[in-house]
Amino acid sequence: MKLPQEMLTDLLARWPVARLATVSGRGRPHLVPVVFCEFDHAIYSPLDGKRKTGTRLQRLVNLVGNASASLLIDDYTSEWRCLWWVRIDGSARWCSPAPADAGAIARTLVAKYPQYRDPSLMFDTSSYLQLRPSKITAWAQSGAVSTIAAAIRGNTAR
Amino acid sequence: MKLPQEMLTDLLARWPVARLATVSGRGRPHLVPVVFCEFDHAIYSPLDGKRKTGTRLQRLVNLVGNASASLLIDDYTSEWRCLWWVRIDGSARWCSPAPADAGAIARTLVAKYPQYRDPSLMFDTSSYLQLRPSKITAWAQSGAVSTIAAAIRGNTAR
Repeated sequence: MKLPQEMLTDLLARWPVARLATVSGRGRPHLVPVVFCEFDHAIYSPLDGKRKTGTRLQRLVNLVGNASASLLIDDYTSEWRCLWWVRIDGSARWCSPAPADAGAIARTLVAKYPQYRDPSLMFDTSSYLQLRPSKITAWAQSGAVSTIAAAIRGNTAR
Repeated sequence: MKLPQEMLTDLLARWPVARLATVSGRGRPHLVPVVFCEFDHAIYSPLDGKRKTGTRLQRLVNLVGNASASLLIDDYTSEWRCLWWVRIDGSARWCSPAPADAGAIARTLVAKYPQYRDPSLMFDTSSYLQLRPSKITAWAQSGAVSTIAAAIRGNTAR
């Protein structure tokens, strides 16, 4: 199923959570829920501000050896006719964008997630996990992208 | 954080959705949302009944070459103090349990998911993706398993 570009943009701008998979050096998958935003055709996910550095996090250790990553966005509902998911496969890395870009990413994240106004939750605004999409796959039980459009419109960042 | 066994049992019995990660022969992670149940210390996930065989599904192709799998259960909420996740790592395979076990698994799934009473959604009741857990990891923003217990109690299989 082909997801129109503007719908993908909307989804990334409004959907609050995704699950990120990376692969360890031993070939084991690793999964975490993440918050994220899109900036300049890449997806950025910040690290919890309570960590001084992110270098020991398993997802980052994994990316050093294998940049392949997969990000899944979906919304479970007991109404299975409305089930859908969007999967974004690509290459990821831990990066420190140029200060102007890092600032723009930080502002995008804070605008998307008002929770960051709580200073105790604030993230490191200088470095991010960056995912560059190479393949987008979309699925809906109904076979119609309108299911995804409706979910995006109805989503209240719960 | 240590998740008490009875809480894990409750979570697996009541939580409706998880995300499953496997790894391809090229070392790429693959992610899908799944429904599941626990039976005899393993986790079983059925395949969509509309498929005649499951042998070509990417998750099953991946498991033939690499049995490592990871299952993530979490619940996003805008109240970040209530965030939590439980990750179950282990070995997975596509299997056809003995008929008595397959029947018990099917009954457990149908009891958990009334949606399966719709014959058009019914799964193949003879074979399942089976995950045998080897490591359980639990995390809560609050640092307290009571957050997870409250989420399980409050979950209405939405």
